[in-house]
Amino acid sequence: MRKENVKVIIWGLGSMGKGMAEVLLKKKGVEIVGVVGRGEKVGKSMYDYLDVERGDRKDIIIGEYQDVITEKAADVVLVATDSFTRKTFDKLKFILEKKINVISTAEEMAYPYAQEPELAREIDKIAKENGVSVLGTGINPGLIMDLLVILLTGACIEVDSIKAERINSLSPFGPSVMKEQGVGISLEEFNRRLEEKTLVGHVGFPESINMIADALGWKLSKGIEQYRAPIVSEVYRKSPYAEVQPGDVAGCEMRGYGYVDDELKIEMLHPQQIEPQLAGVQTGDYITIKGIPNINMSIVPEVPGGIGTIAMCVNMIPHIINATPGLKTMIDLPVPRAIMGDMREMIKED
Amino acid sequence: MRKENVKVIIWGLGSMGKGMAEVLLKKKGVEIVGVVGRGEKVGKSMYDYLDVERGDRKDIIIGEYQDVITEKAADVVLVATDSFTRKTFDKLKFILEKKINVISTAEEMAYPYAQEPELAREIDKIAKENGVSVLGTGINPGLIMDLLVILLTGACIEVDSIKAERINSLSPFGPSVMKEQGVGISLEEFNRRLEEKTLVGHVGFPESINMIADALGWKLSKGIEQYRAPIVSEVYRKSPYAEVQPGDVAGCEMRGYGYVDDELKIEMLHPQQIEPQLAGVQTGDYITIKGIPNINMSIVPEVPGGIGTIAMCVNMIPHIINATPGLKTMIDLPVPRAIMGDMREMIKED
Repeated sequence: MRKENVKVIIWGLGSMGKGMAEVLLKKKGVEIVGVVGRGEKVGKSMYDYLDVERGDRKDIIIGEYQDVITEKAADVVLVATDSFTRKTFDKLKFILEKKINVISTAEEMAYPYAQEPELAREIDKIAKENGVSVLGTGINPGLIMDLLVILLTGACIEVDSIKAERINSLSPFGPSVMKEQGVGISLEEFNRRLEEKTLVGHVGFPESINMIADALGWKLSKGIEQYRAPIVSEVYRKSPYAEVQPGDVAGCEMRGYGYVDDELKIEMLHPQQIEPQLAGVQTGDYITIKGIPNINMSIVPEVPGGIGTIAMCVNMIPHIINATPGLKTMIDLPVPRAIMGDMREMIKED
Repeated sequence: MRKENVKVIIWGLGSMGKGMAEVLLKKKGVEIVGVVGRGEKVGKSMYDYLDVERGDRKDIIIGEYQDVITEKAADVVLVATDSFTRKTFDKLKFILEKKINVISTAEEMAYPYAQEPELAREIDKIAKENGVSVLGTGINPGLIMDLLVILLTGACIEVDSIKAERINSLSPFGPSVMKEQGVGISLEEFNRRLEEKTLVGHVGFPESINMIADALGWKLSKGIEQYRAPIVSEVYRKSPYAEVQPGDVAGCEMRGYGYVDDELKIEMLHPQQIEPQLAGVQTGDYITIKGIPNINMSIVPEVPGGIGTIAMCVNMIPHIINATPGLKTMIDLPVPRAIMGDMREMIKED
């Protein structure tokens, strides 16, 4: 077994980065060696922003990226700052050129070939040139509506069509998610923002659908179709970061469709809202595979998004360290798993 | 893309081998180049034993293993003959020394470190010496009570305990399974065979439990405990290969337990019987993870065992060809997936 702890740098101490730091502090054989932040966080202790006491641990001072990320300063950097490949590209490039592996929470990075094939090839090239690897992951995209679907098809000799549904609650999420999903606004404003294309909804359908299609060897015959519809509430709803009056919008229902030979093969349904139970909605993750055999899977309630994304990023650390150089996706690597032992035991000797 | 078809030899044309042959004949970019059989099958056409017409395909004559399996005669041999590592060892050795990759249906081979660690190391060594790789897989062990469990823990930051239940029907299986599981015998005979240790029940709990423990980094603190109990039928049941009188045995309920620090961490429950619906039993696969978060998964009805094992073996062909040399298990390789395109596109160039 390797003697040194696995060394991790966290870039971005928002709710995801904070959660990853707190999890890593509880794990064996791994240590946080740096945190990149911005604004007023720079120069302060990481522990000022965590729900964990420093105790007698060495302090970690939040720094600017140029100071924290130096050549081979860590085994991996967890980048929890963006949703889009284009926006996170320069950060990934900077890290890879310092010869450090990367795990990104950017939803598009879960399968960057879907929407940014040129950047994906560029990232792959930079990673290979520097002998390190890079992965985008999270709960969704990354597991629930793609990798888990793909794994279940492994029990099939034929697949006719796939439907993945994720019915979840947005209540635990913060103000930026409320805004992206249109929670609490009027129907008129929702529609206006749809027209303006400023209503984001879920980011990840093109990534999940392309990941599934490529894994199975299906050639998508036209672009992914995506629809965003308002979830209009009949009742008053209130969550920590939002309030919805009857008749206003409690969330956004996303639908996504992937076609093969112009036939609908992959269907995704993802209504996200606050306090779904007030509308009698049971949350859950559902996968329906029509094929030989048919497979009907349910996870009730749904795997929670925030903690799930934190877990996936931490749990993939050994896999991305062990990977051959280049851009990886979840279908290239061994399955994720909870890390309950010493992380060093999971690192392969060269 | 590679130009030549992926070449497959099938060793054993029982119900599993037959099913794999039939599936492979429908897939693109792959061909069966040989079949190993024994007894009266030798010298006959493979098509005599398949529910597929030969049509204008080249005939495949069933042969003895020494004649069919020559050096590099195929990319992979699917061995569907045994349940136990010790029994299948010589076959695997023979194939690996001909520099051909292997996929085995032997349940113990899904994780041979569990019960045959010395043979596992020997197999790994032979595979590496010959630059090829070897995998044991199937629906269970191989997917439902192990790999799927492990993948779901990937969404967890902590796991306290795991319970996997597989409640299935034995009705489609043949006479040898009826015998192994004690279907149709009296309670007295069941108990006598338990004492004699000739009642096999499900083979795979030590493999599944060790696979999960090793994947998560749990150290099992004592041997796996296994129990076999009769499923006594209150009603008359009949299936193609068995008949059960009220008061007699309709199947075998297996339980398996894995402990960490003497605490029960992994629990497996697998009642197998014919015609469960006659006793009001709903078949299904259930996984319950207690941790952060809790995860409750159901697949209803269960993923069928026969077709599932056939699918897993065929679907892992590209992964075992692409693997680095040595003995692999499902937790070392990318996730299985249905192969709906040209299999050659899934083979990595060297």
